[in-house]
Amino acid sequence: MKLRTCAALALTALLGFVTAAPAHEEPKTKGEQEILYRHSVYQVLVWNFARIGAAVQGKIPYDRVAFAKQAERVAAIVPFLDEAYPPESYVAGKTAARPEIWQHWDDFQDRLHKLATATAAFAEVARAGDFDQIKQKFPDLAHNCKSCHDQYRVEEH
Amino acid sequence: MKLRTCAALALTALLGFVTAAPAHEEPKTKGEQEILYRHSVYQVLVWNFARIGAAVQGKIPYDRVAFAKQAERVAAIVPFLDEAYPPESYVAGKTAARPEIWQHWDDFQDRLHKLATATAAFAEVARAGDFDQIKQKFPDLAHNCKSCHDQYRVEEH
Repeated sequence: MKLRTCAALALTALLGFVTAAPAHEEPKTKGEQEILYRHSVYQVLVWNFARIGAAVQGKIPYDRVAFAKQAERVAAIVPFLDEAYPPESYVAGKTAARPEIWQHWDDFQDRLHKLATATAAFAEVARAGDFDQIKQKFPDLAHNCKSCHDQYRVEEH
Repeated sequence: MKLRTCAALALTALLGFVTAAPAHEEPKTKGEQEILYRHSVYQVLVWNFARIGAAVQGKIPYDRVAFAKQAERVAAIVPFLDEAYPPESYVAGKTAARPEIWQHWDDFQDRLHKLATATAAFAEVARAGDFDQIKQKFPDLAHNCKSCHDQYRVEEH
């Protein structure tokens, strides 16, 4: 009972952190919650990916340690996408995800696995710290992103 | 040049995924972007933590593999908080973070480190899969969350 009470308190405290934060927004319904999770995973992914991309493009200086950290974080967060596409997370107009994702589920899963493999491989190259090799490998990663977006993402909505 | 073009394309594609998704929202200013990153990290954290908490509380069945996965994800995402509190990410009314975070930065950093240590230790216990021990260890984790919220989080805003 004591453990349960502690667990409940902790959960309330932690959930409160997030639910209190966007207090100006309406409470999410089922489906919207799942979309929020997915968007959150992508926000975290993009935050880190954007820094990698900027360094590869020469827009910010290449810092070996920082670059490797962001690349590792991209690789760490990508597998979280495995729970980011439950069927209820398709709510037309609220997501850029096309319904084709669920119609071609095996193909979509295959692409997620390939992305995970590509980001893990890129993190290894980033850790090694050879910037010429990093620049050479980046397009592989880029290709994984783009090919999936072309197929399964609404261009504008 | 070719590599740079690919990098730029990939970045545009990936960033587009996120920027297109909440198209109904206004573009974020600097500061709001940082807050969005922070909230996204917490959303991902809470999504996983909520499932752990529900199992510990007996609200959902304890599934050893699923539980260990969520515990590992909590441990994996917590370190991302090290970049989630840049000074510009304090915008009154838009964040539940209190300005005291930046006034007592060393203490706050210390708490984040302790949280990272506690979540890593909990993930180990979760991997071992002894549910009695899991239930016994959960309050430690809970305490880390709550003590920091009590100090540095706005209760209602």
